[in-house]
Amino acid sequence: VSKSRLEAFSDGVFAVAITLLVFNIVVPNASNGHLRQALLDEWPAFASYAVSFVTIGIIWVNHHGTLERIRLVDRPLLFINLFLLMTVAFLPFPTSLLSHYIESGDAKVAAFVYACTMTAMAVAFNAIWIYAIWRGLLDVDRIDMQKLHAAIPRFGAGLLVYVVAIGFSQVSPKLDLALFAVVSLYYVFEQQVDLLPEEPQSSVSTSSSTDRS
Amino acid sequence: VSKSRLEAFSDGVFAVAITLLVFNIVVPNASNGHLRQALLDEWPAFASYAVSFVTIGIIWVNHHGTLERIRLVDRPLLFINLFLLMTVAFLPFPTSLLSHYIESGDAKVAAFVYACTMTAMAVAFNAIWIYAIWRGLLDVDRIDMQKLHAAIPRFGAGLLVYVVAIGFSQVSPKLDLALFAVVSLYYVFEQQVDLLPEEPQSSVSTSSSTDRS
Amino acid sequence: VSKSRLEAFSDGVFAVAITLLVFNIVVPNASNGHLRQALLDEWPAFASYAVSFVTIGIIWVNHHGTLERIRLVDRPLLFINLFLLMTVAFLPFPTSLLSHYIESGDAKVAAFVYACTMTAMAVAFNAIWIYAIWRGLLDVDRIDMQKLHAAIPRFGAGLLVYVVAIGFSQVSPKLDLALFAVVSLYYVFEQQVDLLPEEPQSSVSTSSSTDRS
Amino acid sequence: VSKSRLEAFSDGVFAVAITLLVFNIVVPNASNGHLRQALLDEWPAFASYAVSFVTIGIIWVNHHGTLERIRLVDRPLLFINLFLLMTVAFLPFPTSLLSHYIESGDAKVAAFVYACTMTAMAVAFNAIWIYAIWRGLLDVDRIDMQKLHAAIPRFGAGLLVYVVAIGFSQVSPKLDLALFAVVSLYYVFEQQVDLLPEEPQSSVSTSSSTDRS
Repeated sequence: VSKSRLEAFSDGVFAVAITLLVFNIVVPNASNGHLRQALLDEWPAFASYAVSFVTIGIIWVNHHGTLERIRLVDRPLLFINLFLLMTVAFLPFPTSLLSHYIESGDAKVAAFVYACTMTAMAVAFNAIWIYAIWRGLLDVDRIDMQKLHAAIPRFGAGLLVYVVAIGFSQVSPKLDLALFAVVSLYYVFEQQVDLLPEEPQSSVSTSSSTDRS
Repeated sequence: VSKSRLEAFSDGVFAVAITLLVFNIVVPNASNGHLRQALLDEWPAFASYAVSFVTIGIIWVNHHGTLERIRLVDRPLLFINLFLLMTVAFLPFPTSLLSHYIESGDAKVAAFVYACTMTAMAVAFNAIWIYAIWRGLLDVDRIDMQKLHAAIPRFGAGLLVYVVAIGFSQVSPKLDLALFAVVSLYYVFEQQVDLLPEEPQSSVSTSSSTDRS
Repeated sequence: VSKSRLEAFSDGVFAVAITLLVFNIVVPNASNGHLRQALLDEWPAFASYAVSFVTIGIIWVNHHGTLERIRLVDRPLLFINLFLLMTVAFLPFPTSLLSHYIESGDAKVAAFVYACTMTAMAVAFNAIWIYAIWRGLLDVDRIDMQKLHAAIPRFGAGLLVYVVAIGFSQVSPKLDLALFAVVSLYYVFEQQVDLLPEEPQSSVSTSSSTDRS
Repeated sequence: VSKSRLEAFSDGVFAVAITLLVFNIVVPNASNGHLRQALLDEWPAFASYAVSFVTIGIIWVNHHGTLERIRLVDRPLLFINLFLLMTVAFLPFPTSLLSHYIESGDAKVAAFVYACTMTAMAVAFNAIWIYAIWRGLLDVDRIDMQKLHAAIPRFGAGLLVYVVAIGFSQVSPKLDLALFAVVSLYYVFEQQVDLLPEEPQSSVSTSSSTDRS
C-alpha cells in the first residue's frame, strides 16, 4: 500500500476541512452604520475559527511527522487514519455550533460537542501511533525507540488534558475555548525534537539516495 | 496517459466530496435549553453522514488498490473513472436528502435515490475492473489472474446486495440505511488479500527500483 | 518553474470545482407525498449538473494531455492557465443560474451567461496551445507538428461551435443546454490520437527513463 | 521535514480557497424580466471575486517560486506558512463582506476588513522570506544574494502599498478595490526575473539530475 497516496488523500481532506472553516463566519445582516458592532459581536465565530484552524494545522504538521516515521501502511492503519480524517472533516460542524451558542443558555451543550470532537481527534491520532508500535510498522532508522517509550507518559498527559477539557466544558464554555487555544499554542511551540532523532542518513547518503522522491 | 495524475485528481475529488459531507449536518435553530434535544433529533444527519463518509473512504481505499494493479490508463478508462467520481461527488445530495426525509412520509423516495446512487457507485467501480480485464490493462505482475476469476462470483454477489438495497428502500428506509452501514463495515474488514497476491518484487528489487516515485 | 506543481494546483481547482457543482442541486422543500414530483421538477438542476460535470472532466483530461506535451512552463503560461482555472472555478455559478431560470422568462439571460462561461473556458484552453506554439514551449518529441498544423482548422471549428451556442442561447435555452451536452459527449469520444503521435520513447527507453517521476 | 508535502498541502488550501470564492456570487432572486439588471447590480460581487481570485493566484505563483528557492523547511517555517494559508483561507469572508456592503453606508468598515486581510497576507508572505534569510534556509545555488539584498527596498515598498490601501479604505472603498486590482495586475506582469537568477544547473546537468522529482 502506497504511503504517498495516503499522504495525498489526507492532505486533501486536511486542506479542504481547514478551508471550509471560513463558512463558520457569516456575513452579518447589519442595518446601516452597525456593521462594525455586528462584526465585533461575531467574536465567537472568529475565535473558534482561529482555534479550529490552528488545531487542524497542528494535526497536519504532526500527521506529516508521524507518517515520515512509518515504514509500511497496512489496511487497518488506512482505516484508523480514515477515522482521524473523519474527526477532522467533522470539525467545521462543532466549530459552527460553538460559535452560534457560546453566548446562549445552551453554551455547555455546544462546548461539550466541540470538546468531544477535539478529544476524538486526539484519540485517533494516538491510535495511529499505538497501532504502528504494536504492529512494528515504525521505521526504526527514523525513530529512537528509547526516547519514544520515555515519551509515552507525555502522550498520556496530552490525552488527559482533552478529557479535562470535556469536563471543563460544563463549567465555562468560554474558558474551554481558551483552553483549546492554549493547547494549540503549546503544540505550535512543542518541538517533538527530543522525541524523534535527527535523521543522519539524509545528510550522509549522497550517491544512492534517489529513492526518496 | 499518466496514472499518477489520475490518482491525484481522483484523490482530490474523493477528499473534497468526503469533507463536504459535513454540510449535511446543519446547526439547529434551537430555542433556549433545547439544543441537546435538537441535536438528538438530528440523528439521521449524523447516521447518514457516517455511512456516506465510510463508504467514500472505502471506495478511496479500494480505488487505490485497483489503480495499483492497473499498468496502463487509456482514454475510455479515464471516462469510466470520471463516471465513478461523478457518483462520489453526487453523494452529498442524496445523503442530505435522506437526512431530511427519513422520518417523513417521503422517506421511501429519499431512500430510493440514496440506494440508487450507492448502486451507481458500485457499478462504476466494477466497470473499471471489467474494462481493465477486457482490455488487458491489468499489471500481471501484481495480480493473480486465477484468484481474480475465482473472485468474480463474489463481485457479483456484492452488486446483488446493492440491488437488494434498492428494493429494500421501499420496505424500510431506516433499515436500508442500516444495511448500507453493515455493507460498509463489511468492506472495512474484508481484506482483499486472498484476491490479490503479495507483491514479491517490491521487497526483492534493491538496486534499480528508483522508478516507483 | 515546476510543471508538476502547476499540475497539482490545477488538479486541485478542477477537483474542487467539479465537486462543488453538487451544491447546484438543493434538497427540495416538499410537502408530504410530493417529494417525487419535486425532484422531477428539479430536472434542470440535474441536467446542468451533468453537463457541467462532464465538461470540467473533459477539460481536466485534455489539460492533462496538453501539459504532457509542454516541455517548459513560463510565467505568462502560469497566468493563462490561471485564467482557465478562473473560468472552471466560476462554472458553478452559471450552472446554478441556469438551473434556477431555465423555465422562467429570464431563461435567455441565464443561458447567455452559461454559454459565455463555456466559451471563455474554450478560449482559455486554446490560448494555452497558441501561446505554447508561439513561444516554442511544446515538447517536440511528444508532438507531430505537421499533424498539429493540420488540426488547427478543427480547433477553430470547435471555437465556432461555442460562438454559435452563445447566439443559440437567445433562441432556445433548453436546446442550448442540450447542445452543450452533445459537445461534451463529442469530446468524450474524440480521441485526440490523430492529432498527437504515440510516444515511442516511453516504450523503448528501459534503462535511463527514471526522469519521468 | 519534506518540502513536497508542504507544497501539496499549501496547493490544496490555495486551490480550495480560490474555488470557494465563487460562493461570493449568489444567484439573484429576480422577478420575471429583471435578471439582467439583477446581475448587473451584482457587479461588486463579480469585481471582488476577480480581484480576490487573481490575488490568490499570484500568491500561489509566488509561493511556488519562494519554495523553489528554499532548501530546508523547519518547524517554525511550517507555522509561518500556516499563518499565510490562514489569511488565504480567510479571504472568502472579507470578499463576501465587501460585496455585500460596498454600496452601503458601512462600505468603509467592509473595505477596512478586506484591506487588513490583504495586508496580513502580504506580511505573512514576506515573513517566510525574512525567516528563511535569517535562518539561512535559502538554497544559495538558486538565488543571487546580491540581487536579493538590492530588492529589499522594493519588498518594503510593496508592503507600504498595502498599508496605504488600509488608510485609503476609509476614503473610498470602491477606489480601494480598484487599487487592489491594480496591485494584482502589477504582480501579474512583474517578472521576479531580475531578483532571482536563471538556474544554470537545470539545463547543464544531464546525467545525474534524477534528484529533482
